[in-house]
Amino acid sequence: MSAQQLRCRGFEAAGIACGIKKDGGPDLGLILASTECQAAGVFTRNLVQAAPVRISRRHLAGGVCRAVIVNSGNANCCTGRQGQEAAIRMCSAVSGHLGIGSRQVLVASTGVIGEPLPVEKIVRAVPKLCGGLSPEGFMDLARAMMTTDTRPKTGRRDGEIDGRPFRIIGVAKGAGMIRPDMATMLCFVCTDAEVQHADLQPALARAVERTFNRITIDGDTSTNDTVLVMASGLSGAKVDASSRAAFQQVLEDLLADLAIELVRDGEGVTKVVRLEVQGAATDDDARKIAETVAHSPLVKTAFFGQDANWGRIMGAAGRAGAAFDPDLVDIFFDRVQMVSRGVGCGPGAEARATEVLHRPEFSVRLDLNMGKGSWWIITSDLSVDYVKINADYRS
Amino acid sequence: MSAQQLRCRGFEAAGIACGIKKDGGPDLGLILASTECQAAGVFTRNLVQAAPVRISRRHLAGGVCRAVIVNSGNANCCTGRQGQEAAIRMCSAVSGHLGIGSRQVLVASTGVIGEPLPVEKIVRAVPKLCGGLSPEGFMDLARAMMTTDTRPKTGRRDGEIDGRPFRIIGVAKGAGMIRPDMATMLCFVCTDAEVQHADLQPALARAVERTFNRITIDGDTSTNDTVLVMASGLSGAKVDASSRAAFQQVLEDLLADLAIELVRDGEGVTKVVRLEVQGAATDDDARKIAETVAHSPLVKTAFFGQDANWGRIMGAAGRAGAAFDPDLVDIFFDRVQMVSRGVGCGPGAEARATEVLHRPEFSVRLDLNMGKGSWWIITSDLSVDYVKINADYRS
Repeated sequence: MSAQQLRCRGFEAAGIACGIKKDGGPDLGLILASTECQAAGVFTRNLVQAAPVRISRRHLAGGVCRAVIVNSGNANCCTGRQGQEAAIRMCSAVSGHLGIGSRQVLVASTGVIGEPLPVEKIVRAVPKLCGGLSPEGFMDLARAMMTTDTRPKTGRRDGEIDGRPFRIIGVAKGAGMIRPDMATMLCFVCTDAEVQHADLQPALARAVERTFNRITIDGDTSTNDTVLVMASGLSGAKVDASSRAAFQQVLEDLLADLAIELVRDGEGVTKVVRLEVQGAATDDDARKIAETVAHSPLVKTAFFGQDANWGRIMGAAGRAGAAFDPDLVDIFFDRVQMVSRGVGCGPGAEARATEVLHRPEFSVRLDLNMGKGSWWIITSDLSVDYVKINADYRS
Repeated sequence: MSAQQLRCRGFEAAGIACGIKKDGGPDLGLILASTECQAAGVFTRNLVQAAPVRISRRHLAGGVCRAVIVNSGNANCCTGRQGQEAAIRMCSAVSGHLGIGSRQVLVASTGVIGEPLPVEKIVRAVPKLCGGLSPEGFMDLARAMMTTDTRPKTGRRDGEIDGRPFRIIGVAKGAGMIRPDMATMLCFVCTDAEVQHADLQPALARAVERTFNRITIDGDTSTNDTVLVMASGLSGAKVDASSRAAFQQVLEDLLADLAIELVRDGEGVTKVVRLEVQGAATDDDARKIAETVAHSPLVKTAFFGQDANWGRIMGAAGRAGAAFDPDLVDIFFDRVQMVSRGVGCGPGAEARATEVLHRPEFSVRLDLNMGKGSWWIITSDLSVDYVKINADYRS
């Protein structure tokens, strides 16, 4: 998507380098709305919460905002009182320069945990950052949010309410620490639809539940996860009881686009796998099995090795703490049945399943044949590069 | 330890190649007791249980046994009725050749899940296997149990009861799929102490709880885990109410020796880490945090990278589902304090902690400063070689 296409009425953005990243890459970004926006947010459920998460939660209490400032290269997490003050200073630097209330500014950080944030560098760069604001600045913003991401993640979806078109655009970053209940992921969404906070918050929560909370790369959750939506209302497309479902769908489609992009660009990822569990006793049992299989290092390394090693899938399912009878299970790789009632379907099936595993994206389906519970999750392989990236991250 | 040193009164063992392993390595082993032994066993808690586990459980119901047959290269798991019959045939081949009851023979298998066991190869090799039995055969047995292990694992501990010496020897195999609630680990223990089944079973269960159930390499549990103890009584050292504690200690010491050997030889392991959590609200909270940190891919890759990345430890602890206040936590690498009340202790501490991480074995201690709950676990790093080994395992 070009920067030109990534525009949304009432919003400007910018991304620059302020010197936090050692390589001098872009590491500071800003979104500014031309009017006060209705806003909603979803944050990490990790008990360790970064300072910017605490501050943004507080500033969002009123349900409105004007701007978001974000830095990469440092998570400003586990940084004590100093970190809290640094997050507040990021907001007040923006509010002072733009003449808006400092509680109307939200803040997010991503990067290394536990190192003091060089907030002076950020404060000094705010005038330049504000000077760079442009309706076409969202691609720069997306670049300034990247850590181990290899490419910026952006998305756009258009909708219509009562004949009035509206648009939702979003930028996001991954790429490790991805799992249900979010990730070191940051995602900022802007729409020109007219939505009240009271509608926007549940719409976002529901959309996140079915998108970002269904992806996993390594099972680790981050301390900084943040998804924010700002609605300017400038399109005149009004979300009310009759149009709520239409807006929900467009929002969910956008977040789904971004979520799959996060997995595709996950650290060292070579395979994107949709893991489906059906026929479980309950949805919760299906979820437990889906998550345990999706996080099993043995299953994930087999995906990387393009090895249809269904025994490891059985082993992971058997330790998930859910009702499970190995003698009833069917397993499919895309449409190829590999296991029937707990027993392998033989060399022919194995050969066809191995072909499936050579694809960059495929599905694995377990039918437990016990009940009506089901769940799905998007996961990835565990590659040599994942280990290399994470062993060398800080050096 | 030499084969000479690995002897125990009343027991012979053997290990040979029967053609299951593609590389022609030893893959079939046997233990034979000269008299009927009191016996005890602990098996996998995975709901997927291999055929040999099911058969051994059944045969052990009487609390006695004479022999154990074990193969590597094939787990005989998820192999349906055919697999069940193959496990029974392994027992009856031994019982027929040696003239002992077939229910006095236990059976274990380890290797690939889901492929039919080539049981004919085993049955044909049983005469040669029995012919190779020798008091000094335990080293050969240990070799015949290996899968991705790089070396055989053996141990011996000597004790004394009322002036009478007794001995416990053991052989074990790892090396992936290791986690609390066992592993693809097999472990066979022989002792010449005189212990009744009623004492032996709880002694084993307790010793396993504090040894094999405290080690983890990749969080995956196996379908074939088995720990067996056989007591011949030939030393005359009698375990009763007054000597139970002494026997328990020697047994536990032996299993601890073998457990740490499993981690040291874990797949791709370059670091062995003792992870201690103290000051938790409850022991259960401490266990949850210890296990979550020990299984975190981000923490484990940081160990591999010799990076004292305590932020990842905080992140993992915060998502463990246990009571946890990040602002109270102290973290130590061996004796180096790295985090005080949730905040990093600075570059000096980091430099000293990095030195600790260059050691092959070290401890990581979290003090939550909340209560009196504690737990420990032995874990490892996650290396490039772990991924390579497990991506290529079946090819």
